[in-house]
Amino acid sequence: MISVIGYHTTKFGELWDKSFFNLIEEAIQGALKKTSLEIEQVDAIFLGNMLSGVLDNNLHSSAKIAEILGIHIPIFRVENACASGSVAFHLAKQYIEAGSAKTVLVIGAEKMTDYSPEETAKGLISAASGEEQEAGLTFPGLYAMMARSYLSNYRYTEKNLAYVSHKNHFHGSLNENAQFQRQVSVEQVLRSSYVADPLKVLDCSPISDGASAVIITSDTILAKHKKSCSVLASEVATDSISLKHRKSLDEIYSTKLAAQKAFTKAKLKPQDINVAELHDCFSIAELFAMEGIGFWKKGEGGKRITELSTMFGSKSNLIVNTSGGLKAAGHPVGATGIKQIGEIYLQLTGQATGRQVKATYGLAQNVGGSGGTSVITILSA
Amino acid sequence: MISVIGYHTTKFGELWDKSFFNLIEEAIQGALKKTSLEIEQVDAIFLGNMLSGVLDNNLHSSAKIAEILGIHIPIFRVENACASGSVAFHLAKQYIEAGSAKTVLVIGAEKMTDYSPEETAKGLISAASGEEQEAGLTFPGLYAMMARSYLSNYRYTEKNLAYVSHKNHFHGSLNENAQFQRQVSVEQVLRSSYVADPLKVLDCSPISDGASAVIITSDTILAKHKKSCSVLASEVATDSISLKHRKSLDEIYSTKLAAQKAFTKAKLKPQDINVAELHDCFSIAELFAMEGIGFWKKGEGGKRITELSTMFGSKSNLIVNTSGGLKAAGHPVGATGIKQIGEIYLQLTGQATGRQVKATYGLAQNVGGSGGTSVITILSA
Repeated sequence: MISVIGYHTTKFGELWDKSFFNLIEEAIQGALKKTSLEIEQVDAIFLGNMLSGVLDNNLHSSAKIAEILGIHIPIFRVENACASGSVAFHLAKQYIEAGSAKTVLVIGAEKMTDYSPEETAKGLISAASGEEQEAGLTFPGLYAMMARSYLSNYRYTEKNLAYVSHKNHFHGSLNENAQFQRQVSVEQVLRSSYVADPLKVLDCSPISDGASAVIITSDTILAKHKKSCSVLASEVATDSISLKHRKSLDEIYSTKLAAQKAFTKAKLKPQDINVAELHDCFSIAELFAMEGIGFWKKGEGGKRITELSTMFGSKSNLIVNTSGGLKAAGHPVGATGIKQIGEIYLQLTGQATGRQVKATYGLAQNVGGSGGTSVITILSA
Repeated sequence: MISVIGYHTTKFGELWDKSFFNLIEEAIQGALKKTSLEIEQVDAIFLGNMLSGVLDNNLHSSAKIAEILGIHIPIFRVENACASGSVAFHLAKQYIEAGSAKTVLVIGAEKMTDYSPEETAKGLISAASGEEQEAGLTFPGLYAMMARSYLSNYRYTEKNLAYVSHKNHFHGSLNENAQFQRQVSVEQVLRSSYVADPLKVLDCSPISDGASAVIITSDTILAKHKKSCSVLASEVATDSISLKHRKSLDEIYSTKLAAQKAFTKAKLKPQDINVAELHDCFSIAELFAMEGIGFWKKGEGGKRITELSTMFGSKSNLIVNTSGGLKAAGHPVGATGIKQIGEIYLQLTGQATGRQVKATYGLAQNVGGSGGTSVITILSA
């Protein structure tokens, strides 16, 4: 069994005084400090990062990390668009299971706010197909088409979507590392400007800087002496990068596939999960996640979200996106998958001060692009 | 035990009529055909690629591969600069050893010739440190400093380096997939123009397009029915990305560390290896590799290379870079590590037509940047 034994994240936000590698160093040193580990006790490092090459002409970050830490261990960078963080976690887990390492540090990092909006938007759309790029699409545009399909198929309105942002901004107000720590009402979401109809500013996650790191180990004695939780499953599925080749636009099919595999592996059912971090890059995406994972039935999401049963303080068995989600906590792309797993770790080990949920099982869902990659991670207290 | 059961590579060169994904598809379909496997028999795919994001604003290639093949299996992109290919192989091997897959396809691919020389050079230097980039360095410049240090410390001349290119171009003339299939004499190398003193055009590997794929499996019955060789070791070491933080400039220290680990794992010694593919991105780099791996003693390389004992046709126990190496076969960055392993596979399974060496054990050495990452793979017939 592999355990998560520590987590550290930088604050997420517009961190203009910190470079990409400042953020990486801060997250790594923080995770080492919280676990009282020396870097010599780490056998390998996995970095999840999407945009550093495109935005900053900065590749081979693995060797830069070796330089910063003065080490010679295996270090790898993996990139699956916005799912880079949890793919790094997934491969780090395999590395331990293969017997090549006992203890691995997994870091996700992204520096996005030092560039013009045009540069950042161009970088982000690199996760879509060439054809979609040439058509002038952006991610708000792609998700808007998916949202339109969903709202139309199940007869919901933009108001149904607004509850996602309302809930997640409330959670962000409870998380000191969140980019946005203020609440927004359903009405405020509805009054915000359109980015890509039907999605408005307050339906969209922000552009963010940040880095998050977790340490995982197969060393049971080490895990016993730390605040730890167990990794029951980490499963990946892919789908066509282009929307036009998907089965349908009102779901994220790869999430459904990855969730099925993960529940089988963990020998659990959706109703066993008490706390989940879902990839709400846009409000609609949280509904796709809730339905794809099987928390709610297909088409139910628009109605169920308005009950706010997944909001902190509700008496339900499942609270979603206590970190604030991508919407309020921020979305430094490569870091997101690790922050999600880190938030579940905090919840399962009783360290989620101010937003602690009673939880035995937690789940994180991380998506690449418009759904071309999905990763589901299930953790147990 | 994990076996390599098939290999296919596109021709390397200036392939202006083929896109990045054309090359990927050609390599994947070729590898499936050569192994008589259906894509449904492949459990996961790893892609090694460095520059597609930087040069073509093209990330999330994993999902594009899912689209091309119409599949939903786990697909990952890994990037460790010029070592991306063999890092993909390394992680694919772990994936099988972890029990998450039986059969994995590993592909390396790069499209480099569709851009201006300035764009490509800028992309390539992204594998160096920010400080080295700002100083205006290029990879010929970085390796020139290393070459100067070596030539000076051991009192060799540029002529000693020229033998590397002479040998590898001879090998390229025997490989129908090589970018350059013509021989060059030592004198021709010496007469070529300087790129970065003491390195001349014919000391440098070219800019190339290409894709190479191998299929590996833990299924012993499957391996028994194919032309196969065994993977004895795949080991990775890292070092500071910047030259200024290295122990010395006249070696690639990460190669030494990775080789030591690999020989321990394989329970072999350097003198057991009969055929090797080494990362001769510049002529000097082959000497660093020969010495770092332990084939030759430190400082001996400049003299030993002039004996041409590692050239095809020599009676020695070790022939090096039968593919033509990066120098003559070409260096489509992400593909190189896979092509190296593929060439060893061809040699160990008796398929290296026209350049077949009598070999029981083979080794591939793949380097990222100026030595920030090294990967050593050892295969057995």
